[in-house]
Amino acid sequence: MSSTRDIETLIELMSRLPGLGPRSARRAVLHLIKKRDTQLLPLAQMLDQVGRSVRACLNCGNLSTDDICAICESEKRATGLICVVEDVADLWAMERAQVFDGRYHVLGGTLSPLDDIGPEDLHIPKLRDRIAAEAITEVILALNATVEGQTTAHYVAQELATTGVSISGLAQGVPIGGELDYLDDGTLRAALSARKAF
Amino acid sequence: MSSTRDIETLIELMSRLPGLGPRSARRAVLHLIKKRDTQLLPLAQMLDQVGRSVRACLNCGNLSTDDICAICESEKRATGLICVVEDVADLWAMERAQVFDGRYHVLGGTLSPLDDIGPEDLHIPKLRDRIAAEAITEVILALNATVEGQTTAHYVAQELATTGVSISGLAQGVPIGGELDYLDDGTLRAALSARKAF
Repeated sequence: MSSTRDIETLIELMSRLPGLGPRSARRAVLHLIKKRDTQLLPLAQMLDQVGRSVRACLNCGNLSTDDICAICESEKRATGLICVVEDVADLWAMERAQVFDGRYHVLGGTLSPLDDIGPEDLHIPKLRDRIAAEAITEVILALNATVEGQTTAHYVAQELATTGVSISGLAQGVPIGGELDYLDDGTLRAALSARKAF
Repeated sequence: MSSTRDIETLIELMSRLPGLGPRSARRAVLHLIKKRDTQLLPLAQMLDQVGRSVRACLNCGNLSTDDICAICESEKRATGLICVVEDVADLWAMERAQVFDGRYHVLGGTLSPLDDIGPEDLHIPKLRDRIAAEAITEVILALNATVEGQTTAHYVAQELATTGVSISGLAQGVPIGGELDYLDDGTLRAALSARKAF
């Protein structure tokens, strides 16, 4: 019976992953058991390795195996520029798009009084320290265009007002390839009010 | 950079799971890294444990940590009765429904000449051996109601014809709670032709 219990525990652990429910977790576990040597054991080993080695960069909050991450260490990165993101996933999105060659600062969430997430949880003091220490001239607030993201962006901008650094945010408007008919009203309104000379 | 490579490898491994694509695999990996101690490391450990201990029951093909699975070993199970299923997932479904208290035989797939899956791959000789060894009187073919499942069911029935065992299949018809308006034509036809006195 121990096998059944182990498999049940494994299914339960898998079903807690975002995007998987009990049914898809069962399918995933059976799939893994069938591909024991090519998938299950490599996955177990890699999870263990990542779990033991990966931590947050002490400087920017990116994931890293060292105290300071590769992006903060890299000498190829533009200096004087910090892109503030909510989460490591957003940093990854920026890196995949290869649109930014400065350094990042990961807040680790958005302000949320209800969830007890305040400024000190978002590494904002550390951001202020970095602006002085790294001679930053521009901070780009690349936060999500959600209420939480924009509230947090305003708070960060306010906190940095005294540092004299120039602060910008991502432009809001029609996404590339977007069709007006399918856009929500908020996006249309933002795109219209930020219209540019043609 | 090794951390990035490890995380990329982990995402790649996760994205091969059924139901996960590259994007949801990234989300899952970030989720795991954030819950290192409560989810990532337990998952790694349990995958390793299951991977090292679980194998197919030599008798019925169910998953087990022993040579013979708990269902085959159990003395509480009805004897003389074997329920033939395609896959371990189907055995689990039967067990969850708690509708059958005999033993199982897992074929491990359906006949598929194109994929080079023949009778010997489906453990049909072993099923024939069991019918004699376990004094089986009835074999229930609980195969999927798909073309492949039903073709395989016919083949198995034919193979067992000489054993003198009684062979049955799951009833086909309107599922409990099913609305006629939403049923496919094939199910309606099967339900009509198998109609019963009220």
